[in-house]
Amino acid sequence: MRILILGGDGYLGWPTALHLSARGHDVGLVDSFVRRAWDDELGVESLVPIATLDERVRAWHRQSGKRLAIYTGDLCDGDFVEDTVATFDPDTIVHYAEQSSAPYSMMNRQHAVFTQMNNVVGTLNVLYAIAAHNRDIHLVKLGTMGEYGTPNIDIEEGWLTVEHRGRTDTVLYPKRPGSFYHLSKVHDSHNIEFACRIWGLRATDLNQGVVYGQETEETAAHPTLATRFDYDGVFGTVLNRFVVQAVLGHPLTVYGSGGQTRGIINIVDTVQCIRLAAEHPAEPGEFRVFNQFTEQMSVREIAAAVSSAWPGGCEVQEVENPRVEAEAHYYRAAHTGLLDLGLVPHLLTETLIGSLFRIADRHKDRVNLDAIRPTVRWRSTASALAQWREAV
Amino acid sequence: MRILILGGDGYLGWPTALHLSARGHDVGLVDSFVRRAWDDELGVESLVPIATLDERVRAWHRQSGKRLAIYTGDLCDGDFVEDTVATFDPDTIVHYAEQSSAPYSMMNRQHAVFTQMNNVVGTLNVLYAIAAHNRDIHLVKLGTMGEYGTPNIDIEEGWLTVEHRGRTDTVLYPKRPGSFYHLSKVHDSHNIEFACRIWGLRATDLNQGVVYGQETEETAAHPTLATRFDYDGVFGTVLNRFVVQAVLGHPLTVYGSGGQTRGIINIVDTVQCIRLAAEHPAEPGEFRVFNQFTEQMSVREIAAAVSSAWPGGCEVQEVENPRVEAEAHYYRAAHTGLLDLGLVPHLLTETLIGSLFRIADRHKDRVNLDAIRPTVRWRSTASALAQWREAV
Repeated sequence: MRILILGGDGYLGWPTALHLSARGHDVGLVDSFVRRAWDDELGVESLVPIATLDERVRAWHRQSGKRLAIYTGDLCDGDFVEDTVATFDPDTIVHYAEQSSAPYSMMNRQHAVFTQMNNVVGTLNVLYAIAAHNRDIHLVKLGTMGEYGTPNIDIEEGWLTVEHRGRTDTVLYPKRPGSFYHLSKVHDSHNIEFACRIWGLRATDLNQGVVYGQETEETAAHPTLATRFDYDGVFGTVLNRFVVQAVLGHPLTVYGSGGQTRGIINIVDTVQCIRLAAEHPAEPGEFRVFNQFTEQMSVREIAAAVSSAWPGGCEVQEVENPRVEAEAHYYRAAHTGLLDLGLVPHLLTETLIGSLFRIADRHKDRVNLDAIRPTVRWRSTASALAQWREAV
Repeated sequence: MRILILGGDGYLGWPTALHLSARGHDVGLVDSFVRRAWDDELGVESLVPIATLDERVRAWHRQSGKRLAIYTGDLCDGDFVEDTVATFDPDTIVHYAEQSSAPYSMMNRQHAVFTQMNNVVGTLNVLYAIAAHNRDIHLVKLGTMGEYGTPNIDIEEGWLTVEHRGRTDTVLYPKRPGSFYHLSKVHDSHNIEFACRIWGLRATDLNQGVVYGQETEETAAHPTLATRFDYDGVFGTVLNRFVVQAVLGHPLTVYGSGGQTRGIINIVDTVQCIRLAAEHPAEPGEFRVFNQFTEQMSVREIAAAVSSAWPGGCEVQEVENPRVEAEAHYYRAAHTGLLDLGLVPHLLTETLIGSLFRIADRHKDRVNLDAIRPTVRWRSTASALAQWREAV
C-alpha cells in the first residue's frame, strides 16, 4: 500500500512512518519542519536529541534497506498539496500535520488564529487534493479525544443515535472542546464529514487520547531513529512531564485537583492503530470515527502511577489550573472500533514508566525545569510566556 | 445603546443600522467593501442600484438628523478590530461581516479556503477584541438555519437535551451543514460558545432562515437609502430570484424536485430580531441561540406562492440540483425565542410578493438572466463559472 504521511517528521508521524515501512508499505513523508521552529520560538527542545529528517531517512535505509520519499512543504499551500498527492499517488494519506498543542493555541490572539487557520486550511487543501486527484484515497486523520470535552453522557465513537420527541436520528456526536486547538480539530471533523457526503471520500477520523512513551520497536533500533520527547508546559503531554519531574526530584505538578479524566494511549499502540486503520479502510463515502485510546485515567491517577514506580515515591503538588475545565466530572468513552480491527493494547505499567525514567535520566542534563511551568492561562487573552522568558 | 454593526454596508447590515439608529441607538458601521468587489468578480450587480456608504450615511443624516460613524477595514486584521472596538466602545456588536454565499464557497478550493478563513478568523478577532477591551459587550452573531442541515428529529434552538444510556446532558445541537460556507458558521458557533465559557462573554447566535424582501420602513424613505437586491445564482436568495424570473417571463427554476424545506424570514423582521436581541442581551457567560425565521416552506411552495401572485401564473421548471442535499426530508424547527422577546412576524403574503414584483419591474432593464443560472456544482472541485463567463 502506498501511504503518504503528513507531518512525517513529528513526534508520532515519524514512528508511524517507520512502523508502516517495516510492515512493507511504501511510505512518503510530507513536512514543513515548522514544529522544529516552534521549539526555537518557545526556547525549548526535545529531551531526546533528534536527527534531521534527512539523517533519519538515511539511517532507516541503512537499518532496513527501505527508502522513504520526502516532500518538503506547507499544507497551507494548496498547489503544493495537489502536486504532492498527484506525484506520490497514495492509497492512504495519514494526516498528522497540524499544530497540536492546546496551550500554544491559547497564548494570544495571533496563536489562536494561526492554529485554526493552519489546521483548517491544511485539511481543506488535503480534501480538495484527494477530490481532484483520486476520490478513492483513504484519509486517516488525527483528531483528539479532547474534542468531546467532558459530557455528562457516555462518549460514543463519532456518531450518536438520539431519540427526541418521538423521532430518531443518528447525528454527529456533539462536541464541546476546551481550547482553540481542540476546536480546530472539531472544525476539521465537520469539514471532512461534509467532503465524504459531497465527494464520496472515505475517511477515518481518529480521536486520539493523550499519548505517552517515546520508543517503538523501530525507533529504538538506532539513536538516529529516535523521535521527540516533549516535556515542556506547552507541547509536553502530562505523563511525559511527570516522568521528567520525577527524575529531577521535582514535585509532580497537577493542574487543580487533578480529577480531570482522559483517555491515554501508549505510542506503541498509536502506530498500531494507524496501521490497522490504513489496512482496513473506510468505505467510499464513509466518515468513520474511532476513539484511539486504550484506558482512561485521571491526572491524579497518572501522577500516582508515576510516583509509585519511582523509588521512594514523588511529592504531588496541586498548582492553580491554568485551563478552564471541569476537575470533577463523569467520563466514560467508547473505544471498541480499533479493538475490533485487531488492536492489542499495551497498557500503562511500572515497566513502561521505568523505561521512561531511564530515557529521561539519560538526557536529564538537557532539561530546563522552568519550561515545565504552565505559562499560558486560558482566562487571559495574552500569555505571560513572552514576558516570563524575558525575565529569566 | 452604542451598537457597532460589522458588515454595515451589506444587504442586511445597512437596513439594520438604519432601524437601530431610528430607534434611538448610537450606531457605528464597520465594512471592508469586499462584498462590492465580489460583484465585480462575478460580473453581476444588485438589481436595485446602491449608493456608496458615504452617500448613504449623508442621506440618512438629511433624512433623520442622525449620524453614523464609519470604520473602514477588514476583520481579518486583528489590530484593526481591536482598535475599532476600543474607539467606538460599543455595548453591543452585531456581526454580519462574513462571506455569506454557499455557492461562492463551493466554486473551488480557493473560494472554500477563503470563505472559512475569512469568516472564522474575522470572528476570532472579534472575540479577542471583546475579551481584551470589555467582556460585558454583547455579541450578536449572524448564523444560518443551514447549519443544522435536515435532521430527522426536531431542530431546537442551539441546544439539545439528550438522554443516553440512562444519563442526561444538554449539549450543543449537533449540526450537519451543506456547504463550506455553512460549515464556517458552525465553526464560528463552536468558537463563540467556547469564548463564553472561558472569558464569560455574552453572545447571541442567530440561526437565520432565508431572507426575502428588499425594503424596510427606513430604507424605503429615499432611493439613496436602498439596500441591495441580489438575484444571481451565487448571492441571490431563492424568493428574490423567483420574483425576477416572474417579472421577466422566465420559468421559475427549482433545484431538483423542490422538496427542500427551509425557514424563511422577511427583511422587515430581520431588523426587528436584531433590535430585540440587542435590547435584551444574553447573560454574562451565556451562549444564547435563537432560530431567526418566521415560517417554514419548501422551495416548491415558495415557487407556487410567487406563481399565484403573478397575473396568469408562472411556469415552474425543475433543473438539475447543483447542490448535494435531501429533496424530501423531515423538517420541523423551533423558533420561539425571538417571539418571546416580542417579535411580531410579517409573513409571506401576495401583497409582499406584489411589492417585490414592482421593485423588480422598475429595474428589469438591469437584469442579466444568465446570472441566475446555477453554475457552481457541489460534486465538482472546480466551478464552471469562470469558463462559462469566458464563453458568453
